[in-house]
Order: sequence, then C-alpha cells, then structure tokens
Amino acid sequence: VDLEAREAAISRQGELTKPPGSLGRLEDIAIQLAALQGRAQPALEQVRIVIFAADHGIASAGVSAFPQAVTAQMIANMAAGGAAISVLARQIGASIELIDLGTVAPVPAHPLIRQAVIAASTANLAEAPAMSAEQLAQALAEGAAALERARAAGAELFIAGEMGIGNTTAATALTCALLGLPASSLVGPGTGLDRGGLARKQALIEQALALHRDSLADPTEAPIQALAHLGGFEIAAMAGAYVACAQQRVPMLIDGFISSAAALVASRICPGAADWMLLAHASAEPGHQAMVQALGLRPLLDLGMRLGEGSGAAAAVPLLRLACDLHAQMATFAEAGVAPKGD
Amino acid sequence: VDLEAREAAISRQGELTKPPGSLGRLEDIAIQLAALQGRAQPALEQVRIVIFAADHGIASAGVSAFPQAVTAQMIANMAAGGAAISVLARQIGASIELIDLGTVAPVPAHPLIRQAVIAASTANLAEAPAMSAEQLAQALAEGAAALERARAAGAELFIAGEMGIGNTTAATALTCALLGLPASSLVGPGTGLDRGGLARKQALIEQALALHRDSLADPTEAPIQALAHLGGFEIAAMAGAYVACAQQRVPMLIDGFISSAAALVASRICPGAADWMLLAHASAEPGHQAMVQALGLRPLLDLGMRLGEGSGAAAAVPLLRLACDLHAQMATFAEAGVAPKGD
Repeated sequence: VDLEAREAAISRQGELTKPPGSLGRLEDIAIQLAALQGRAQPALEQVRIVIFAADHGIASAGVSAFPQAVTAQMIANMAAGGAAISVLARQIGASIELIDLGTVAPVPAHPLIRQAVIAASTANLAEAPAMSAEQLAQALAEGAAALERARAAGAELFIAGEMGIGNTTAATALTCALLGLPASSLVGPGTGLDRGGLARKQALIEQALALHRDSLADPTEAPIQALAHLGGFEIAAMAGAYVACAQQRVPMLIDGFISSAAALVASRICPGAADWMLLAHASAEPGHQAMVQALGLRPLLDLGMRLGEGSGAAAAVPLLRLACDLHAQMATFAEAGVAPKGD
Repeated sequence: VDLEAREAAISRQGELTKPPGSLGRLEDIAIQLAALQGRAQPALEQVRIVIFAADHGIASAGVSAFPQAVTAQMIANMAAGGAAISVLARQIGASIELIDLGTVAPVPAHPLIRQAVIAASTANLAEAPAMSAEQLAQALAEGAAALERARAAGAELFIAGEMGIGNTTAATALTCALLGLPASSLVGPGTGLDRGGLARKQALIEQALALHRDSLADPTEAPIQALAHLGGFEIAAMAGAYVACAQQRVPMLIDGFISSAAALVASRICPGAADWMLLAHASAEPGHQAMVQALGLRPLLDLGMRLGEGSGAAAAVPLLRLACDLHAQMATFAEAGVAPKGD
C-alpha cells in the first residue's frame, strides 16, 4: 500500500471542518482507500461485480431449503435483471458479469452470462473430494481472469458475489478445516433450513471433515487442499479472484458468509491479501463471526442480511463513495474561515 | 400508519426471489416505509434536510473543544457547500434549508439561510432557565413551519440536523431530566473535550439538574419544561418539527445524539410520534445508547460517527432508497420462473 498517499489523506482529514475523528469509519475508509489506490483523493466511480455460480454435489443430500435447479434459475433471473444483485448493481451503477462454472440444470445463453463450465456440479464432499486438482486450477484461473477483465474495464473496486444451492455447507466445511473448529460451532440455517435440516447439515459436515482429515494434514498445502476437498467451483473462483486482486493491487469489498470463506482461503494462500480487503457487512449466518475474526476485518454494515449474491457488498458501496466525497469535497478550516479546535 | 399497505408490502417481500427474510433490515425498512407512506411501493425521491442552528449560554462556561464563534462560521460553511452535511446533501440529492435561530457571532445573508433569530443565545442553563416560555413557543413554531415548507416541497422523508457549540451539554441535561438519569451516566466528550473539560461539563449538568428540579416536578409538564429550562433553540425547533412530522404523517429519519434528545421530547409531547421515526445511526457519544433504548428504535448504522449536522442520517439515506428499489424492482418467484422454498 502507498504510505505517502495514506499520510496525505490522514493529514487532510485533520484539516477538514469537523471535530477530528467525528466522521468515524467514513474517515478510516477514505484513508484506507487512499493508501490502496495510491492517491490522496480516492474515488470509486467504477465498481465491478462478478457473480460466480456453480452447483454442489452435497445439495442432493438435502442441505438446502431450495431445490438444486434454483442455481441455474437464479443465474437467468440475475441476467434478466430481477435478482437482488441485479437491482443493486443497477442502482449503484456497477458493471456486472455472471460466470456459470457448472450447474445441473441448463443455463440459457445471455450476453451477461459467461459460460465457463467445469462440470455439472462438484462431487458430494461428504463422500469424495469436491473437485480434482485440475478442476481446482480451472476455477482459480477463472477467478483471476475475471479480475483481469474487471481491471481492463477500469474497476476501482472489485466485488465477488455467488450463487450455488448448497454452498453454505461447503463454505462451512472449508472454514472448519481452515480454522480447526468443529461443525457445531459454525453451522447455520443458510437459506432457511429447519431444525432437522440443520442437524443433517451438521452431520454431513462432520462426516466430510473426518473423511478428508488426512488429505489436509500438511499445513503448507492445507488451504489449497481444503478448497479442493471441501469447496465449490464458485468458492474456488472467488478465492482466485481475491488473490489476483491483492497481486494486482485492486481493492476488494468482501460480501458475506461464502465470500468470507473464499477470502479466508485467499489470505492463507497469499499472506497480506487481507490488506486489500474491506468487509461490507456482518452476515446473519451465525458462523460468519468466526470468519470475520480470523480475517481481522471489521464489517461496515450489520443489517441481518444473509442473501449472498454480493448483495451486502453492493449495499455498502454508497457509504464508501460518500466517504470519498466527504474527503474530497469538504472545506478545510482555513478555506472556510472556521476556527479549529482550541487545545 | 396504513395497515393495508403494510400487509401488501409484507406479502410482496415473501414473493420476491430470495430466501424469506434474507435481506434483513432492508426488508423491514421497505415494509415500514410502505406503512408510513400508505402505499405498497414506498419511495424516497424527495428528501429534505433542515439544519437548525443556535448558540448556547452554557458555552461560555467552557463545555466545548471549539470556540462559540464556530456556530455562525459553520452556518456560513454549510451555506457555501463546504460542511459535511453540504457534501452529503449534494451527493444524495436532498434539498437543504439552514435556519439561524440565534448566534453570538453574525451570520452572513445567504439564500439558503433563513433568519429566524430568537435571541443571540440561550441563557446559561446552569444558572437560569435556558429560555422563556415565549422563546420556547417561537422555537417550536419555527420547527413546525420548517416541516410545512418541506411538505410543500414534496418531501417524502424529513431529516433534521443541528449546529450549536455547547449543544451536547444541553442535550445531555435534557435527557437526564427526561429519563431520570444522573449526569455521570450520559455525559460524553462531544466535539472532543479532554478529561478536565469532561469533569467540568458533568459538574455543570449536575448543577443545572439541581437548579431546575422543582420546575420539572409536574410529570405532565415535565417534557416541555425540561425543554425550556435545559434545552436550546435548535433542540426545541427540532422537537417542534418532529411533532409536526408525526401529526402530518411525514416519515422522519433521526440523526444522532442531539436529534435523539429532541426526538425523545417529541415522543413525550406527542405519544406515538416514534412510530414515524427511523433511527439512522448509533452515535459514538456514549449517552446515545440510553436515548436509543428510551425511543425504542434500532439504529441502522454504527460507524462511530459523532458529528451531528444530520450527517449520520444523510449517510443512511442510500440504504433506505436501496430498500425501496429492491422492494419495487426485484422479480417474484412466479415472474422469474424460480422454484420457491420447498417446505
């Protein structure tokens, strides 16, 4: 990060016509974005949202309140403009790209949808590795390529969203493995499981963690092996995009539960990646708290959201922009002829 | 509130292509605004911000980190477009009005500034009633008149902001009297008092509460008497505007510490007024928590802001609008051909 731009931004915040610190995290955001973008006056005109979608073998075991065909149906809904993330992207003026990494139901051809099918779905992670090493490499590369296209489009902020029935199960298993926590401490209702479904989900995650334990024994290889054995195509692609963001110095705004699991993998693969991350919100999915702590990030919003799709991140974009506007446009004490704090 | 519009909004939220409840408070906001605006599809195109400014006699006792002349200087800065609220109002496309209720330093003539001077400042509330009954009536009427102009301008949401060096002292004293709490439990640093200043502020509030105790003994008259004895012209005008909002059925978005003190008075004068209030954020001023509980409201944001001016409320407006947009523009399960939750 650019320490000179950071110092210039800190200094400017002290000169603006307000009590020092009184804009709270809106000041911190402006300073952080200045450091990440390498300019004393950060800006977020160009925001890119990329939705990674894929199906999960575990879905057939009944870990979701929705049928698996919904993954493909929701990709079509996103492309048609009717999903939450479609509305949010339109309202905040963000460009959007949808990437189909593989669904059991067919996805219609559409200009907004990039076909990048790895397989119809991952394998059932409670019975086998979710994906092969080749499939993992393909997913990681799709994520990195999405970030390249975002950069080519001039993105000043990168948001990854996701769609995949069953993906809170994969994200929970993955996080349990990375943080060494039992399934019981992280498992939650996802899209709305009842008590019986929740118990089944927890048992399947415990089964998966036991099944793959030996494969994750090498600590150097653990993040990447956990991603292959317990993850999903969309989660792996997000992790690939996040690593690319850090390497290419593009600030990223992390969404909720699934995104944070991918961010956790990225920060294990690429130490320092979390420096390029802002965390949009605290998910209502109970296990999110442990991810947030492990990432060392503070959520901006806490609105009880648990939709995914990048929706929490998109909702936080206006706040980031207002932080930049305040930083750029407020008058200094000298400019306004206002007496500064007298101490 | 309109229960039919509320039911229609609840029903629509259940049909939109997302797990029920997964947009969290963005769903609640859309439903609440539908009930308040009396239409199944609420909207917030027209937002009005009115800044009430006034000086406080108590400021001469050294209860602020800033000199008293800053009140008038900041009104000029707001009119010139350099204050935080100026930037925020511009970015969210809100109309703004500045009302000068009386400052010790002169305020320049400016088309955005309405001159409504009651007196150069209130009296020192630690030594005398802050204002007379006539002055209180004048301030309340100015607030109600501001809401009338906002309505005439088509306002769908009303935000009151304030400027007044010393006004956290008045707001704290007022809240202590209304809630029966000691000064020690609510006093805070305001614009940035050091430890010595904080002790002085607390002692002065204790002195004021003792001095005016007998005048506030009648429970029926207590809210209005507390406002006269311990308030400020801008706080009284805000309370007047809030009461008018409730009476005229205009939703209001409450800002932070000072605004919440005025909102508390309004809800005591006019039971049910809080039904028309949304609370924008949790102020970093420590006493705000007690006000929030007494109002029975939940803050939307918690960003460590403590600037006033209506800045926290303005920062929350994009979230309210996104809630309305999601409610209006998302596709239903039927429209999108997406399978609903299978339970």
